[in-house]
Amino acid sequence: MELHGGNVYKAARELDLPYEKILDFSANINPLGFPDAVRQIIIDHIKDIVHYPDPEQLELKKAAAEYYGINPENLVPGNGSVELINMIIEAMKPSKVIIAAPTFSEYAHSCRTRGIKVELVDMTKNNFEWSMDLLEKVEHIDKNSMLIICNPNNPTGKIILKSDILNVLELLKDKSSFLLMDEAFMDFVINSQSLIKEVEKYKNLIILRSLTKFFALPGLRIGFAAGNSELVKRINDLKDPWNINTFAGLVGSEVLKDKNYIELTKEFISQEKEYLWDALNDIKGLSPYHPEANFVFVQIKGGINSDMLAQKLRNYGILIRRCSNFDFLDDSFFRVAVRKRTENDTLIKALISILS
Amino acid sequence: MELHGGNVYKAARELDLPYEKILDFSANINPLGFPDAVRQIIIDHIKDIVHYPDPEQLELKKAAAEYYGINPENLVPGNGSVELINMIIEAMKPSKVIIAAPTFSEYAHSCRTRGIKVELVDMTKNNFEWSMDLLEKVEHIDKNSMLIICNPNNPTGKIILKSDILNVLELLKDKSSFLLMDEAFMDFVINSQSLIKEVEKYKNLIILRSLTKFFALPGLRIGFAAGNSELVKRINDLKDPWNINTFAGLVGSEVLKDKNYIELTKEFISQEKEYLWDALNDIKGLSPYHPEANFVFVQIKGGINSDMLAQKLRNYGILIRRCSNFDFLDDSFFRVAVRKRTENDTLIKALISILS
Repeated sequence: MELHGGNVYKAARELDLPYEKILDFSANINPLGFPDAVRQIIIDHIKDIVHYPDPEQLELKKAAAEYYGINPENLVPGNGSVELINMIIEAMKPSKVIIAAPTFSEYAHSCRTRGIKVELVDMTKNNFEWSMDLLEKVEHIDKNSMLIICNPNNPTGKIILKSDILNVLELLKDKSSFLLMDEAFMDFVINSQSLIKEVEKYKNLIILRSLTKFFALPGLRIGFAAGNSELVKRINDLKDPWNINTFAGLVGSEVLKDKNYIELTKEFISQEKEYLWDALNDIKGLSPYHPEANFVFVQIKGGINSDMLAQKLRNYGILIRRCSNFDFLDDSFFRVAVRKRTENDTLIKALISILS
Repeated sequence: MELHGGNVYKAARELDLPYEKILDFSANINPLGFPDAVRQIIIDHIKDIVHYPDPEQLELKKAAAEYYGINPENLVPGNGSVELINMIIEAMKPSKVIIAAPTFSEYAHSCRTRGIKVELVDMTKNNFEWSMDLLEKVEHIDKNSMLIICNPNNPTGKIILKSDILNVLELLKDKSSFLLMDEAFMDFVINSQSLIKEVEKYKNLIILRSLTKFFALPGLRIGFAAGNSELVKRINDLKDPWNINTFAGLVGSEVLKDKNYIELTKEFISQEKEYLWDALNDIKGLSPYHPEANFVFVQIKGGINSDMLAQKLRNYGILIRRCSNFDFLDDSFFRVAVRKRTENDTLIKALISILS
């Protein structure tokens, strides 16, 4: 099985289809596509790839600091989030990492390949909500540990409230332990629960953000780690000076200022996710969880498993994300991105025809 | 001082000039620019940045394997060489690293920030040639150490013959120790001394290659590590699955097949480096080392140091690479890239007028 969603090239090879023909619900990318300005920025700067990218990325950090409401010295830009996860694990060398699961698999992978012990906390027991189990783990955490939470969580779409996390941060501080909070999907949330503005106050907090999902730029690779300036310096020291390619730096600096696109996306997703959720709810045999971000987590109730369902949908040229390779999830779960209305309707129709 | 050459954006900010007006001899980039096909590949695939890049990079690895004359399973693609250096150090965890210096500073930086002990071997004593000192170090190397050599070396332009290195590899094997050989500039060498085809035979050998310099693509970020398949797997496990951005993957796959461009570049550089070297030799007060790659390493003989010279050249809009922040080098050394004839003549004229 695919480790991650979004590999349209591999699916196209396997289905012997042009990749443009594939309707990809397996990656959680803004269905409106990237902002209009992106195309011209890239064309105008093709000539500049003969120069090294700016190792300081001053413009990118300035634009991101403005967008997130923090200072540039609290930010490290990354070639996507996973590079940053790897560098954070290497910089912090936690004695142990506790991960609220099921979640994005690269947290545990990054730790394990670096020899760091991982303890997964099973969030299925409490309907994938922030639970007492996790709170109890934090209360008994060893010194120099790290808690990793994805908020809103991938693949469940559940969100944890800022007030709950602030309590945990205080507990972790007493144990000289850290919180790594991946907010890759927070931009889609209308009532943001982001903790990014707290990074200077809480020296044990690191936030991950991504331009990949919200700005529909997975091919360019741009993410950020935010933390207090001393932590940021430690991560920066481990970093390749030219990790941000020329196009990523230029495009990132511009899209973060595109207020119209940002508002339009938030409104669109907040409405369309309800439409998709409702429509999935109406399909007999499917039980979708209410989404907080731009994707819906769904359980199949009997009759067919997610492997079979995914296989049947591939015949329609549709990709979904099977979830059985997430920790604690069986083959009854899958995840679909919120796409445009006509595309969502295509998915719904295909699901109805397969499941009826 | 700049840690590296090639930061035209910072120089432009400081000189209050558009960066296009700067004549950059500080970065060692193919002066013919990238192959013609690059522009259209990028334009045609702007639409594809809404997809994640291919994590397998099959096409890129296939093209590189063909170009280097090895198998795809012996290659790990990197977001430039420095990402690969960092991953190699993390994968191998050498007990100690021995570096032939002066050389590219990121080897030592990568080791030190990861807590690995570094021992520098001073190559100035033997006119920057491969020396008995280094051979002696290898004979007395501790188990699980790593020797790092850049060949041809940056900034000196000196090359080490394949036959000499093979002896060292045997010595290292007996000590369960590794050789990391950075061949970032080997493509420019007419009589290649590359060891890349030996990676399956010598399990203690890792080669770094780069598309940055030869194909004039520093802004895109593409490099490779080559090693035996078991080593490659260890490095791959530490890697971000999407480290190669969409454009880097597509462009890299194509340029490696452009035989005309490759031949043209080799011929051009092999002739023009002699022209530039001759012209520098004719300037009183300069002592250039004969170049093996696409840059010339120069010592100033009295009267002015490289800081003063670089400052004066900046008034002509010309950047050179001062070398006093390389290990064992003082402020009498600088490095200049081989550029096109008219550009080299502009440099030569400016140097003559400053030094006379």
